[in-house]
Amino acid sequence: MVFILKKDIPAEEINKFRISWEEKGFSTIWAPGTDHDAICLIGNTSAIDMDAVVQTNPIVAYARRVTEQYKAASRLVHSDDTVFTVNGVQIGGNNFTVIAGPCSVETEQQMLSVASAVKSSGAKLLRGGAFKPRSSPYAFQGLGCEGLQLLTEAKRITSLPIVTEIMNQTQIPLFDDVDIIQIGARNMQNFDLLKAVGKTDKPVLLKRGLANTIDELLMSAEYIMNEGNNRIILCERGIRTFETAMRNTLDLAGVALLKQKTHLPVFVDPSHACGIRSLVSPLAKAALAVGADGLIIEVHNDPAHALSDGAQSLNPSQFDALMMQLKQRASSEEKNM
Amino acid sequence: MVFILKKDIPAEEINKFRISWEEKGFSTIWAPGTDHDAICLIGNTSAIDMDAVVQTNPIVAYARRVTEQYKAASRLVHSDDTVFTVNGVQIGGNNFTVIAGPCSVETEQQMLSVASAVKSSGAKLLRGGAFKPRSSPYAFQGLGCEGLQLLTEAKRITSLPIVTEIMNQTQIPLFDDVDIIQIGARNMQNFDLLKAVGKTDKPVLLKRGLANTIDELLMSAEYIMNEGNNRIILCERGIRTFETAMRNTLDLAGVALLKQKTHLPVFVDPSHACGIRSLVSPLAKAALAVGADGLIIEVHNDPAHALSDGAQSLNPSQFDALMMQLKQRASSEEKNM
Amino acid sequence: MVFILKKDIPAEEINKFRISWEEKGFSTIWAPGTDHDAICLIGNTSAIDMDAVVQTNPIVAYARRVTEQYKAASRLVHSDDTVFTVNGVQIGGNNFTVIAGPCSVETEQQMLSVASAVKSSGAKLLRGGAFKPRSSPYAFQGLGCEGLQLLTEAKRITSLPIVTEIMNQTQIPLFDDVDIIQIGARNMQNFDLLKAVGKTDKPVLLKRGLANTIDELLMSAEYIMNEGNNRIILCERGIRTFETAMRNTLDLAGVALLKQKTHLPVFVDPSHACGIRSLVSPLAKAALAVGADGLIIEVHNDPAHALSDGAQSLNPSQFDALMMQLKQRASSEEKNM
Amino acid sequence: MVFILKKDIPAEEINKFRISWEEKGFSTIWAPGTDHDAICLIGNTSAIDMDAVVQTNPIVAYARRVTEQYKAASRLVHSDDTVFTVNGVQIGGNNFTVIAGPCSVETEQQMLSVASAVKSSGAKLLRGGAFKPRSSPYAFQGLGCEGLQLLTEAKRITSLPIVTEIMNQTQIPLFDDVDIIQIGARNMQNFDLLKAVGKTDKPVLLKRGLANTIDELLMSAEYIMNEGNNRIILCERGIRTFETAMRNTLDLAGVALLKQKTHLPVFVDPSHACGIRSLVSPLAKAALAVGADGLIIEVHNDPAHALSDGAQSLNPSQFDALMMQLKQRASSEEKNM
Repeated sequence: MVFILKKDIPAEEINKFRISWEEKGFSTIWAPGTDHDAICLIGNTSAIDMDAVVQTNPIVAYARRVTEQYKAASRLVHSDDTVFTVNGVQIGGNNFTVIAGPCSVETEQQMLSVASAVKSSGAKLLRGGAFKPRSSPYAFQGLGCEGLQLLTEAKRITSLPIVTEIMNQTQIPLFDDVDIIQIGARNMQNFDLLKAVGKTDKPVLLKRGLANTIDELLMSAEYIMNEGNNRIILCERGIRTFETAMRNTLDLAGVALLKQKTHLPVFVDPSHACGIRSLVSPLAKAALAVGADGLIIEVHNDPAHALSDGAQSLNPSQFDALMMQLKQRASSEEKNM
Repeated sequence: MVFILKKDIPAEEINKFRISWEEKGFSTIWAPGTDHDAICLIGNTSAIDMDAVVQTNPIVAYARRVTEQYKAASRLVHSDDTVFTVNGVQIGGNNFTVIAGPCSVETEQQMLSVASAVKSSGAKLLRGGAFKPRSSPYAFQGLGCEGLQLLTEAKRITSLPIVTEIMNQTQIPLFDDVDIIQIGARNMQNFDLLKAVGKTDKPVLLKRGLANTIDELLMSAEYIMNEGNNRIILCERGIRTFETAMRNTLDLAGVALLKQKTHLPVFVDPSHACGIRSLVSPLAKAALAVGADGLIIEVHNDPAHALSDGAQSLNPSQFDALMMQLKQRASSEEKNM
Repeated sequence: MVFILKKDIPAEEINKFRISWEEKGFSTIWAPGTDHDAICLIGNTSAIDMDAVVQTNPIVAYARRVTEQYKAASRLVHSDDTVFTVNGVQIGGNNFTVIAGPCSVETEQQMLSVASAVKSSGAKLLRGGAFKPRSSPYAFQGLGCEGLQLLTEAKRITSLPIVTEIMNQTQIPLFDDVDIIQIGARNMQNFDLLKAVGKTDKPVLLKRGLANTIDELLMSAEYIMNEGNNRIILCERGIRTFETAMRNTLDLAGVALLKQKTHLPVFVDPSHACGIRSLVSPLAKAALAVGADGLIIEVHNDPAHALSDGAQSLNPSQFDALMMQLKQRASSEEKNM
Repeated sequence: MVFILKKDIPAEEINKFRISWEEKGFSTIWAPGTDHDAICLIGNTSAIDMDAVVQTNPIVAYARRVTEQYKAASRLVHSDDTVFTVNGVQIGGNNFTVIAGPCSVETEQQMLSVASAVKSSGAKLLRGGAFKPRSSPYAFQGLGCEGLQLLTEAKRITSLPIVTEIMNQTQIPLFDDVDIIQIGARNMQNFDLLKAVGKTDKPVLLKRGLANTIDELLMSAEYIMNEGNNRIILCERGIRTFETAMRNTLDLAGVALLKQKTHLPVFVDPSHACGIRSLVSPLAKAALAVGADGLIIEVHNDPAHALSDGAQSLNPSQFDALMMQLKQRASSEEKNM
């Protein structure tokens, strides 16, 4: 952290400021300049509220933070890719893994039909929402526990590990048979939930919030890792911008940047990002090309009658065609599918 | 809801589409056009996933929703201002109410000192964070239950009703002595929490999320009202935009618009919005001028040593000066302070 | 500018890097750290492409710029408010000045009618668009030179100085009778136009671009000032964000911040910012309260038949009512109207 | 266009409203509803200011536009891909075309060295900035006409057609030897410039503005086409969002959407979008995968000493490696390189 000082500050004032930090265990360095002098602060500055220092010390003009706040998630700390296995399915490293299934769990017939279809097309994990976050209280809220049972049954029959979204930490006991706990975009900074899943031994699929930066996503991963759980998949699913032609703006460059900043696997959700079925396949191929480790895709046996997100769901034959295209391209990206 | 059809659709196709809606209990109207024909759907369309209809019905080119999804919160449904009393303090209507206190509860001495100061300057309620949502797991997370006790003690001594933030619904039993439950920006779409506070008889201060629209804020209020709790204060606290000169972009025009769209009281949090102490007073005055019903302001007895948000906290004498300015201006806006 | 170095860089490498800057006339300071060492660069760094240095010097991990790039516009350089006179009308300092008139100049009768109405309500300058930037080539593009003539005639009759928008630098000769040249939001970074108006002796009303930061606005003012023209009014007119309920998001906090950063007068355009007539008055009052030096407001004698922006135009009696409200409040803000 | 009416409007009022439109040559359709009645307007509504109608007709509650405003650029009007030839180089259709060269033209040696390098790697056109739009007046502004001469010389020697940016319409005569006129992001809505290049017979590379929607980009293309020039390349180069980790947020989903909405070729500029050299290659591959028709990439013989944008420039060997990767993947996307 660097504090740039205002002009013509008396030496005693500066000295007092340096001593106040050194008494807290930091070292300080004096860095004079033509326009402004500065003081560099050395030590673990991650808990310092930088703006507060500026506002509350009349001698300081600006401050700059020069190291990232996340540590465990950083590739600087852990340079090799994190690779882990979920019920026999390897995630990360050279694997390109596709999670597929309906937005919402609706019926037994639907789940089994979609599950067997996506499995035969090459999906390695099954998704399906039992608890659904919806903007409107009048919209379908998911089947809840019954949905979890239908998912579990589909898992038993197809052997596909299952991924489903948790809404709050009191639900953790319900997720015993779930293989990957999904934390949705709206909960990315539900810190109590992050801490709670961090205490479990379940892998976590952590979606980026609609208005959260890449650094904040990594800080949320840090919350989970700080509790001892390192099996995290980060998931880019579109951010909110001024553009309204699509549901969100998919930040594929952010995926490429995440792959440089962190060792954690990074997935892409093209379905929620755009909200338009015909864009899912081009975005899925672009995600593979940009370096993603996998995809989570909405597939429905009958999109026209889906209870949620039908507009962006592929039907099984569209999904099968996409998987063929991805398999053709995976080896160019040195990925196994 | 209006569905605009693609060109040259056979009459049978259109008929099938209309019948499919009429069988669900809607009425339909045929609206031919020069470029496109359209079908208007009549009935309660709030649960319809409009995009899904478009994507899954090949005859539909576009759809437009023509009524708002929120009902209970709408001024169309309830035209008079909602006014309610919290422990003797009236909120809404002709009242301009200031909530003040430190960002975080830190010590007994701090709470009592700030509480008596803000009371004597004219604040009507006391704020203070016991549970703190922080982007970094390494940052100060609040005193928790001990913080709640210090708040309660300050309430007992000063008689100021207290406002503090809840992090998740399991904490509700801890909030017995709290007068207004605050739901923070990151939890605005934590729907389980909204439902849970909707089942209590506590007034709720609902902050707008960083990337949430005014309509989504009203839908979140609708979640609470749908459970029977109508005592809600909406709070604008800045949205996230491309501008980085301030912490967030305070949407004061959104406040004026909210006052037209809803009967619920609307407060402004200038401290979090800008994150810069010297901007708090001009923004507070602008909030009064634009039609807000009150403010929530961070005041700290010693901002330089605050454990969080010191950069944006006023000290008691700055707060007192601001309150003087607000009182001078309140009558021009036909508000009592 | 501070360069934070990667770890374990050999001393010779660092030395070479420092010498490369010192040969260009900069001084360098060595600032060792626990995590990272750093080098501070002293001198006029405003032309340095900071990111380029980072990317092209493998020893550099990050860089931070610690001084602003604008100089002439900065209050640090020129602490007193800029106050200037336009045809007898004082702008800046203790003056709160209202510019009013129709979005587009349409007819002689319209201009004279609006001009005399706004004058009698207390507007000090007259606005009206002769050349109109429109997103669609099929929309009304303004009356052009004929519009300028109608404006000039209205000026002759009412003695109100006139403000109108320029579209490109070839039009400067046409603006001889115009008192203030307006540069629209879309042209805020039309640098050739900025340089061209900088060479004139006309005051300039410079609108903030839809997606431009406050610092970029000040840099655009710097372009004009760098050519010798210091009579600039900055104008906040709403920025583009994710919120679609209003035309744009008015950044009133940005106005308060601008007043701290620069000595130039800052105006607000509430009409374009929100695009909704009923919000113009609350936003105008909030602009006065937040510290703006004036307003530019759209007034039309017959908004229902305006050729552009009728939705946000006040009629003369609405404008008159607003001016009364502003006059009542101006003295509280120590402003003359 | 659909006007949704307020409740309980007397029949005469409605009739008057319909007649007012029918007198202007539109047809109207009466569409009663349970919540609201509506009137559909039929005819060429592209010039109607929808919001003005709502604000100025007290009987109208909302309005919705149901057809796009652009016509010539729309794939609905012209379903086949636009393909054209620039000095022997085919653009659009099955071609994947790479434009490469330095950000700024600096010296003869630089231009010739970069031009021959990118040509031998497979670039089909040469880029280089002679006139540079820069946020700061103190930054390098380009070599101007001398830069154009150096570009022309590089064209003569290598036979590569050249692409360079125009700053304003007075420069058109200088662009005689330029093969494609580039309109930069800041000029996307410089409508006088759009009209002026529309009157030339030069192909135009039109970059999307930082805060402009896809529909606005298409409307700007419409300005050019409306003057008779149909040879336009649209270029996505990143939009401005809240994320600051990269220079901009590259909207690759927008590229896929553009390919559906318009027949015009769509290119991607990964260099400006991210501003980080190591991200250029993954983004270039993703652009190919998502359906783009080509790329514009910054290549510099000596990025460390580039006068602008060195941070994002590839050196010739990095560019060569990227071109190899693109060629391997082009056939999977049914593109020729």
